[in-house]
Amino acid sequence: MDRLVVASISSSLMLLVVAGLVHPSSGGITTTSRSTSCGYQSCHATKPGFINVHLVPHTHDDVGWLKTVDQYYYGSRTGIQKAGVQYILDSVVEELQANPERRFIYVEMAFFWQWWEEQDESTRDVVRDLVSQGRLEFINGGWCMNDEATTHYVDIIDQMSLGLSLLNDTFGECGRPRIAWQIDPFGHSREQAFIFSQMGYDGLFFGRLDHEDKKQRMAAKTMEMVWSSSSLGQTGWLFTGVNYNLYQPPPGFCFDILCSDSPVIDNPKSKEYNVDQRVTEFLNYCQRQSEAYATDHILLTMGGDFTYQDANVWYKNMDKLIKYANERQTNGSRFNLLYSTPSCYVKSLNGVKKSWPLKTDDFFPYGSDAHSYWTGYFTSRPAFKYMVRQGSNLLQACKQMDSALSWSGSTNQGDVNVMKRAMGIAQHHDAVSGTEKQAVVQDYQGRLHEGVVECQKTQASSQLPILGRPLADVKFCQLNVSQCDVSETSGRFVVNIYNSLARHVDKYVRIPVAGGESYQVLDPDGKVVDSQLIPISPQVQALPGRKSSATEELVFLAAQLPPIGSKSYYVERDSKHRRRHSFKSKSQRLVPGEDHIITTDKVKVRVDGTTGLLSSVTVNGEEYFVQQEFLWYPGYNGDNESADRRSSGAYIFRPNGTDAFPMRRTMTAAIITAVYTGPLVQEIHQFYDSWVSQVIRIYRGQEHVELDWVVGPVPVSDKIGKEVISRVTTTILQSDGTFYTDSNGRQTLRRELDARESYTYTPTEPVSGNYYPINSHLFIRDPVGEQQATVLVDRSQGGSSLIGGLIELMVHRRLLRDDSFGVDEPLDETAFQQGLQQLISRELPENVNLLTLENRSDGSYLIRLEHIYDVGEDKVLSLPVTVSLKDLFPGFAITSAEETILGGNQLKKDSQRLVWHSSSSDKQTNVRSSHSDEFPDVDLQPMEIRTFILNLVRDNRLDK
Amino acid sequence: MDRLVVASISSSLMLLVVAGLVHPSSGGITTTSRSTSCGYQSCHATKPGFINVHLVPHTHDDVGWLKTVDQYYYGSRTGIQKAGVQYILDSVVEELQANPERRFIYVEMAFFWQWWEEQDESTRDVVRDLVSQGRLEFINGGWCMNDEATTHYVDIIDQMSLGLSLLNDTFGECGRPRIAWQIDPFGHSREQAFIFSQMGYDGLFFGRLDHEDKKQRMAAKTMEMVWSSSSLGQTGWLFTGVNYNLYQPPPGFCFDILCSDSPVIDNPKSKEYNVDQRVTEFLNYCQRQSEAYATDHILLTMGGDFTYQDANVWYKNMDKLIKYANERQTNGSRFNLLYSTPSCYVKSLNGVKKSWPLKTDDFFPYGSDAHSYWTGYFTSRPAFKYMVRQGSNLLQACKQMDSALSWSGSTNQGDVNVMKRAMGIAQHHDAVSGTEKQAVVQDYQGRLHEGVVECQKTQASSQLPILGRPLADVKFCQLNVSQCDVSETSGRFVVNIYNSLARHVDKYVRIPVAGGESYQVLDPDGKVVDSQLIPISPQVQALPGRKSSATEELVFLAAQLPPIGSKSYYVERDSKHRRRHSFKSKSQRLVPGEDHIITTDKVKVRVDGTTGLLSSVTVNGEEYFVQQEFLWYPGYNGDNESADRRSSGAYIFRPNGTDAFPMRRTMTAAIITAVYTGPLVQEIHQFYDSWVSQVIRIYRGQEHVELDWVVGPVPVSDKIGKEVISRVTTTILQSDGTFYTDSNGRQTLRRELDARESYTYTPTEPVSGNYYPINSHLFIRDPVGEQQATVLVDRSQGGSSLIGGLIELMVHRRLLRDDSFGVDEPLDETAFQQGLQQLISRELPENVNLLTLENRSDGSYLIRLEHIYDVGEDKVLSLPVTVSLKDLFPGFAITSAEETILGGNQLKKDSQRLVWHSSSSDKQTNVRSSHSDEFPDVDLQPMEIRTFILNLVRDNRLDK
Repeated sequence: MDRLVVASISSSLMLLVVAGLVHPSSGGITTTSRSTSCGYQSCHATKPGFINVHLVPHTHDDVGWLKTVDQYYYGSRTGIQKAGVQYILDSVVEELQANPERRFIYVEMAFFWQWWEEQDESTRDVVRDLVSQGRLEFINGGWCMNDEATTHYVDIIDQMSLGLSLLNDTFGECGRPRIAWQIDPFGHSREQAFIFSQMGYDGLFFGRLDHEDKKQRMAAKTMEMVWSSSSLGQTGWLFTGVNYNLYQPPPGFCFDILCSDSPVIDNPKSKEYNVDQRVTEFLNYCQRQSEAYATDHILLTMGGDFTYQDANVWYKNMDKLIKYANERQTNGSRFNLLYSTPSCYVKSLNGVKKSWPLKTDDFFPYGSDAHSYWTGYFTSRPAFKYMVRQGSNLLQACKQMDSALSWSGSTNQGDVNVMKRAMGIAQHHDAVSGTEKQAVVQDYQGRLHEGVVECQKTQASSQLPILGRPLADVKFCQLNVSQCDVSETSGRFVVNIYNSLARHVDKYVRIPVAGGESYQVLDPDGKVVDSQLIPISPQVQALPGRKSSATEELVFLAAQLPPIGSKSYYVERDSKHRRRHSFKSKSQRLVPGEDHIITTDKVKVRVDGTTGLLSSVTVNGEEYFVQQEFLWYPGYNGDNESADRRSSGAYIFRPNGTDAFPMRRTMTAAIITAVYTGPLVQEIHQFYDSWVSQVIRIYRGQEHVELDWVVGPVPVSDKIGKEVISRVTTTILQSDGTFYTDSNGRQTLRRELDARESYTYTPTEPVSGNYYPINSHLFIRDPVGEQQATVLVDRSQGGSSLIGGLIELMVHRRLLRDDSFGVDEPLDETAFQQGLQQLISRELPENVNLLTLENRSDGSYLIRLEHIYDVGEDKVLSLPVTVSLKDLFPGFAITSAEETILGGNQLKKDSQRLVWHSSSSDKQTNVRSSHSDEFPDVDLQPMEIRTFILNLVRDNRLDK
Repeated sequence: MDRLVVASISSSLMLLVVAGLVHPSSGGITTTSRSTSCGYQSCHATKPGFINVHLVPHTHDDVGWLKTVDQYYYGSRTGIQKAGVQYILDSVVEELQANPERRFIYVEMAFFWQWWEEQDESTRDVVRDLVSQGRLEFINGGWCMNDEATTHYVDIIDQMSLGLSLLNDTFGECGRPRIAWQIDPFGHSREQAFIFSQMGYDGLFFGRLDHEDKKQRMAAKTMEMVWSSSSLGQTGWLFTGVNYNLYQPPPGFCFDILCSDSPVIDNPKSKEYNVDQRVTEFLNYCQRQSEAYATDHILLTMGGDFTYQDANVWYKNMDKLIKYANERQTNGSRFNLLYSTPSCYVKSLNGVKKSWPLKTDDFFPYGSDAHSYWTGYFTSRPAFKYMVRQGSNLLQACKQMDSALSWSGSTNQGDVNVMKRAMGIAQHHDAVSGTEKQAVVQDYQGRLHEGVVECQKTQASSQLPILGRPLADVKFCQLNVSQCDVSETSGRFVVNIYNSLARHVDKYVRIPVAGGESYQVLDPDGKVVDSQLIPISPQVQALPGRKSSATEELVFLAAQLPPIGSKSYYVERDSKHRRRHSFKSKSQRLVPGEDHIITTDKVKVRVDGTTGLLSSVTVNGEEYFVQQEFLWYPGYNGDNESADRRSSGAYIFRPNGTDAFPMRRTMTAAIITAVYTGPLVQEIHQFYDSWVSQVIRIYRGQEHVELDWVVGPVPVSDKIGKEVISRVTTTILQSDGTFYTDSNGRQTLRRELDARESYTYTPTEPVSGNYYPINSHLFIRDPVGEQQATVLVDRSQGGSSLIGGLIELMVHRRLLRDDSFGVDEPLDETAFQQGLQQLISRELPENVNLLTLENRSDGSYLIRLEHIYDVGEDKVLSLPVTVSLKDLFPGFAITSAEETILGGNQLKKDSQRLVWHSSSSDKQTNVRSSHSDEFPDVDLQPMEIRTFILNLVRDNRLDK
């Protein structure tokens, strides 16, 4: 059975300007020097025979949501939200000093780092001490608390590693987070759990899971479990706990300066004295919570959104609560309160001799009540989701180029950290998720843009010797965006394309040009390359905000792009006479009622002459029935006063009814506006409505069909919010009820209509309750696996298969009401969306991917190699494979290679994870134990990712 | 010309129970031991040639208002107001440590003390250091920031001294406040300024003055002045400054965690960077403020109500503001910002060679706009005002008795501190003022009640040896309240009466009894005393909440009560036969249309037979026309959307129109319900309406007439709030436009209708704009001073003389709307009021009053002697007088006597106040320089108060 992976190529057209920067530094793996009692050693003792109540002081600091990252950091725009992270960290550090019993966990490194850089050395010393004593503990430790539905695994690994490496550089072993803390994301992916397991985490906590799942788990005391997160057996096990109260304190016990609950008043002379009553209330709550958990330990999250700006209020009252509650032990109380951290709690549970339930599926989708399925955000803000995906590709390339500049001794005039941090922030669960306010997404986009500019400078840095001109004179354009000032106006320009994959790649390049001219494209050897001019559709030309006079695109194939390397093409305008190899597209005459057909050497596409819709694709002589069209669901306009009156909104997808409506009442052939043919590329242009159009495209030599759509601005003059889907209809009717979706673009999970693998599910929202996050692919297949239909996407979006043979993907949504989960702004996004889907293909990449190559400030390099096939996916490609590191760095000798855990923040040999027991048998053996590496050769098991830190020297034998 | 002072007698009838207590300690005058750079020495340098901007970080912590004192202290009931003083002090102490440049002032000792007692020694050491370095400075330093309109000078001195002595005991000289800080009270009294001057203060700041006054002062740059606060010349001078913005920070610069203004963001990489804009805004404000002030110094109040719960937010941003604003000096900025305190600001102004304008009148009434005269609170909550006045008398007696127990070596089973603190809190400008919420006034009353109980135990402590029974068996009743369980039910009981005056006094005592019985009263020598039974009016008997079966009162004269001492009477019930000296009252027959007349040896009272109103009083054979009646103003029901739509409320008196309405449309003789005569007391009972009645009463041997009224519950079923006045009409028509009111019960100030002494006044509220606070007396007289009508009051209330010959006093008010000045609750007080007014009298007290006698924990005693006549008030009594301290303590020798400033917290000889210059000549010479004391003889000038700390030993010569 065939399986597809999206080819990840990032390239830039060198054409536009930018300014200079400073390099922040990052260090190596630090093993602690300072005397330490951090980690599990620093935990307060618990009391056997008591219910130990672990109070975990924490703050949940969104890396942007209602305000921008900086607005949250500095605490500006209090009119929107009173939240200033600088004050939180100031205050917590002060209050931890006041009493050594106190504990605090901090999570989001984007904020911590901004704060750390503003501190003087004496404050830093205080913090180092607090960390080395385990009083301040970093948890999660990524740049942000990333979303789990709309993020790509590459970006999760990057954003986690960014935070972890800074922690390691600064605090050494005591700064290494042991516990993952995904308390707010709106559902939880299996791949995320796998990544944590590979990063050496001993446990994961989260707050949100489906309300039915939670209810059933509470009754069965299975709120805590072992998650088997991959096919790699116990290596992929991760202890996982569900918080009792999301991540909030017990009702009535929010001691934040912005909360309104009563303080603990222990002055018996005061009329306000309330200790007895308050302790009783608190212990009653502990009793209720303990009834839902399996051991004599419970974890209470003592914090919330941006709490602890005035940490004294919390600690002063918790100090009293602990004191007076524990005094009751002499009167027979069974409760023992203590300051704790998730680590200490996990350590306590690990000490309990117990077999934990095993979890093998994921936690999607998340329904917080019967009518609130958090499946809207899978698609919300598709423009930003696309920008993040593009940024991901660019960042990988950028880090590689930075490494190459480093080992070649050249200066990088760009700053890779800008893009690292911008992408780190973008993974936040209110960033790429699309659940932030409009003004905030603009800030994220601005940050990504700054990162892009720095990466363009990085790319240019390696090209400057060739170009022979200063950086300031180089201009940049984005690849395959139909707008580029230079190419539209220059008579000669260079197109430099970087291939970030570790193998040769062919890539069609599209350059916007003014139109009415001829062009000649030369490869690096001066050889003329075939090129074709093709008109840009009037819909695209008229897109709001487009500032371009381009009416055509110049298409050519950048063939055999070298692995982790670039290739430059020279383009010359010549309006005078037509040259050989320079083709113009032919426009087919449209005959009413007649099918429209385009054909390459590999593929034939047929569009129905009556409906105007795609009707079949022929590959290798076999014709498959495949219909594709756009439809829309009306978003429910509720007032959110009760669950059944919930609106569709940024988080929630709740269609008003189960029917999706076609764009037009009656489809006709008039939907087809043009058909272009030519030697390189063939296109059929569809026009559904003023706000929906699409180009169906095939390239010479390629087996897939591109659906290049433009949707929006979504009209709402009828006062109806709209959620637009692209629906593909196939003949694989036997798929009924079963479909497959990726997990963060990596693992593939089986989904079943109106059912959940691990709990009893009551269907209440027939459409949105069956939506799942799609990051790379969704497929259906017949039960015997002979036929399969796969849709690849160019960004994260929601998708499902509600009827046998059908696949639907939500590509855009615009809603007029808020869904009342905090963002307090309707998702009234006026932007249009341009996107790409591919269909049915047979191209197969190799099974090894160079996931990461990045330069470290200590002169070493971090690489990650991954096996991209799972067990049983392909007879050959799913086999274990051996990679030679040497081959990756021709011209260099590897002087040292040390394997680390996935985050790069601890040597693999030093990693000692806690061991857990489960009654459920996990069929997979611990495949990792089978490694027999003989450096520089590295074994990779299916779906395995391995991380190494290498030191390189130029191989002098080659120089001679 | 005659002048009256209210005789201050406190007494208790010993009859009811209470529990035990602990003695907190108070120490002597501490001269500092710790090395110090506090006070003026600790001020930051200012910059000559610049406008020095003194940033004064402060918090304004109401000692009760919307929440009770303890609710504010602990921060409970955040639903009402987010304010927790414990956190403020915690936080400020932490943040002052972080940067030695920072300064903070703290004001309210009631809060500080509660906090201090909760701190451990290490925190106390930190605070001592901060105080000794002038980084934390106490300002004002009284138990609260007292109201100035409705407080009695005795209570102001007490509440100030309470705080000052604790500061002195704890911090020594560095804890001594130099500056008075009355930033919130609603108008400012001359007596208050005088008290501050005598307490050694170098300056006074406040926020509220009439809007027209402020406007005129800003234009004339006379916001700062020297206030000549008494007839004592420069001794009574006090530098006085009016704050520019009440006590708030510049708009946009509230850096409180609960405020919403932008932080200062100085990271140039951040999109939120705003330093340039913020500094410019701030300096523009400084420029505007400096234009209203006379020197190159301006004071900016950087704080507000309960600010600094998270002091870091303030300081972090102010640190930046100061830094970046001062950096502009290199670019020509004329502004120099510095952390400062009111002391440092005053010191700077004192260094400016300048003659300051002289102020001689007071700052009443306060109109915040043309229709918002803050004259309602002069009367708001009359029941509480009465309780406070009674408490004042009791406290003086209680302190004296405590002293006597001390020097006699007896144990005081009561704790005087409870009453001291309760009374201290009650003086707060939202306490006795009546401008707190209903629930809060109940808390104040509860605290006073606890103080009363302790004082009763104190009184009993000296009587226990005589009574021969334990304290638990002693029961107490309040004097002259028509309800007392014991006297109503017991056949025999003791009445012990304490006289807190330093002279012999005669006092009529009224004891409620069941009725229908005969009683015999014996004096301490067993001699039978004349007594008379007189019926309690049905209106009083039926008062809501009254729990008594008493129908009569037993009246007798406690004659020749010894100075600062008590006398016990024995009362025996004997129902069988009438005894000599035991009289019953005679009820006169009421003849329609005939005048009602009662007569004693001194006074004859006539009530008009047609109107039922008082019509004349005859004293010494001369009949004066005097009419008295009750009327009411309808309170204006505005929506407060603009000044002209202001409601009458707790603060504001705004009658709807200028007319006061009579209780009944037609007055008739039916108003008179009873006339009682007898040898000791004579009464005429008036019934105006179900909610207004009055007893007109005269006693044998006394020259005054008592008007004993009951008003309320005020009916509002007609939806009209009512403000009830007692109006006295005399024939002194020439008084037109001029009347005289006391200042906190001491000085007398001349008032002129529709005019102000020191600024141009536009009458916009003809009634309330002419209301003034009355604490003891209001009088009118003819221009040559031959005729005078005086009304003495039993508590604070508002009063005026709107027409020649008329005096009106507002005795009660009940309103249905809030006036929108924060209390956010209509003054919908349902309680009734019982009160007393006296008229026209000739009794003259001596000119010396023993103002204070209290026991100090170091074994010494503090006394205050005052001359109660002003210059020129009486030919003889206004003369300077010499008092022998020795005579005050018969049986004891004075081993040392040191004079202190009024607060008792600094030796007089150590007091060095700043010297100020004024262009206006102050006619009074500095009379204090004429003292020629030869201890133990002490000179007193008119209106002077002198304070001494004495050590006593029993005079053995007397023992032998």
